[in-house]
Amino acid sequence: MLNNILIVGCGLIGSSILRGSISKKISKNIYVFEKSKRNISFVKKINKKIKFLNDLDHQVSNMDLIVLSTHMSQYKNIIKKLQRYISSRNIVTDTGSTKRNIEKLIGKNKRLKEIFVLSHPIAGSEMSGPKFGNKNLFKDKWCIILKSKNKSSKKLKIIEKFWKKLGSKTIFMNSVDHDKIFSITSHLPHLIAYNLVKTAIDFQKKNKKNIIKYSAGGLRDFSRTAASNEIMWRDIFFENKDNIIDSINIFIKNLNNFKRLIKKESNKSILNILKDSKKVRRQIIELKQDVSKPNFGRDIF
Amino acid sequence: MLNNILIVGCGLIGSSILRGSISKKISKNIYVFEKSKRNISFVKKINKKIKFLNDLDHQVSNMDLIVLSTHMSQYKNIIKKLQRYISSRNIVTDTGSTKRNIEKLIGKNKRLKEIFVLSHPIAGSEMSGPKFGNKNLFKDKWCIILKSKNKSSKKLKIIEKFWKKLGSKTIFMNSVDHDKIFSITSHLPHLIAYNLVKTAIDFQKKNKKNIIKYSAGGLRDFSRTAASNEIMWRDIFFENKDNIIDSINIFIKNLNNFKRLIKKESNKSILNILKDSKKVRRQIIELKQDVSKPNFGRDIF
Repeated sequence: MLNNILIVGCGLIGSSILRGSISKKISKNIYVFEKSKRNISFVKKINKKIKFLNDLDHQVSNMDLIVLSTHMSQYKNIIKKLQRYISSRNIVTDTGSTKRNIEKLIGKNKRLKEIFVLSHPIAGSEMSGPKFGNKNLFKDKWCIILKSKNKSSKKLKIIEKFWKKLGSKTIFMNSVDHDKIFSITSHLPHLIAYNLVKTAIDFQKKNKKNIIKYSAGGLRDFSRTAASNEIMWRDIFFENKDNIIDSINIFIKNLNNFKRLIKKESNKSILNILKDSKKVRRQIIELKQDVSKPNFGRDIF
Repeated sequence: MLNNILIVGCGLIGSSILRGSISKKISKNIYVFEKSKRNISFVKKINKKIKFLNDLDHQVSNMDLIVLSTHMSQYKNIIKKLQRYISSRNIVTDTGSTKRNIEKLIGKNKRLKEIFVLSHPIAGSEMSGPKFGNKNLFKDKWCIILKSKNKSSKKLKIIEKFWKKLGSKTIFMNSVDHDKIFSITSHLPHLIAYNLVKTAIDFQKKNKKNIIKYSAGGLRDFSRTAASNEIMWRDIFFENKDNIIDSINIFIKNLNNFKRLIKKESNKSILNILKDSKKVRRQIIELKQDVSKPNFGRDIF
């Protein structure tokens, strides 16, 4: 059990870590630093023992573990503040969706490099804010822990233990691989969802027809993904833009190829593409990354 | 109550119509024409009173209502067979996802035009086959009924009543509007889902990394859509290709624009796009086209 944990930013992710930490007795004392008054008043209701910091001041030096769960665009200021008070007895981890940019922020500062062990829990939802947080948000989900050459194995183990206590399955990865992989499995899908919904909005405006009500045939699923927090996703799109632009280009190439195939009605090629993706669905379900129920079990008959 | 109804093709949709028709006592006798032996033996278990036709022969002339729920690529042969026996006392409807092509099949044949009232229930799932059929599949879902100038209002009313009995909300539309609207709300989303999964497969092959296990951050939702029946979707992509190609082009234009915006980090424009799509999500939920639960209520905490 840790003595002091500090959660910086208490939205969906931060408040889920908070709840999980209380439930799993991860730390004797739990501190929160949160700017939004609305969020603070909500978090106060979760547990009376939570302590609130008014600033990232000298008190942070007492924290065994500091978890950043703000939007990534706030990291720069936060790291600047933390830098004044933290030493090698502290560990800082985070929850951001891209990692190369955070490594760059830490830069070549030897002390910071020692203190920071970055991580990325693959969990969330389209809803934002502490209201939707849940102590089991990370249960059975992957959490990527960022490994680099000179990282202290002791600190890595503490972070690994932390996420495992919250229920995650952990895996180590370097930031270059991480940012490439998630540009495909997460950033591109979100970007596509946003642009598909935009395409529907454009169509609706141009044709003056209300088409949203016919979204049950496919669009509605994308609209869920496209309802995710806009600040979080702007940050991801900007911070991982090189990988994301590569992904968009590969995807557009596939789309153009598909367009050619339907134009000339290439039966066999089209069927192969359609059948292959069914295999991926089976893998995803076998890997317990999704529920197997038709329609996500959404239709209650 | 009808005397005789014939369901041609008894997969997910046909067997759901069958179950709904039994439950809502839509017809005294229910006939099924189905080629797959496996499906037949499954359907037999649903109800002992179901009668099976071995062919689309003279018996079809006794049917008050014939519902086509096969893949659209089989319509041509079916219509050819039906044509021999049906007269203006019969009504034929269907469940295909594109309509202009079916109208073309019926062509200028006056008798066929009189007998056919096309429809499109906006319901389904990624699972195929009668095993996954459900009597409530159409409940509270839209069903589009195709209206054209000389369609008998009596026949239109019978079809409207039929879908309402199965629980659908009905709306009339012409085939040109229908095929345009659903190219955006349904065909494009499916096509994109297939191509996104293909992009992930390509990446996996090229980089020799198993990325599917990290699909929880977005890809998994698309994989559900991309697990839909490949014959059905090939038919849709081929039959509505002009509208679909238009939709792909608009979508690619949006993607390229988005790419430019993230390249130059256009904060305001990106945030506007991301925020607008959240409004669409709210509309979809207000219109009861989706559940409001975070993550489709998929995570059971």
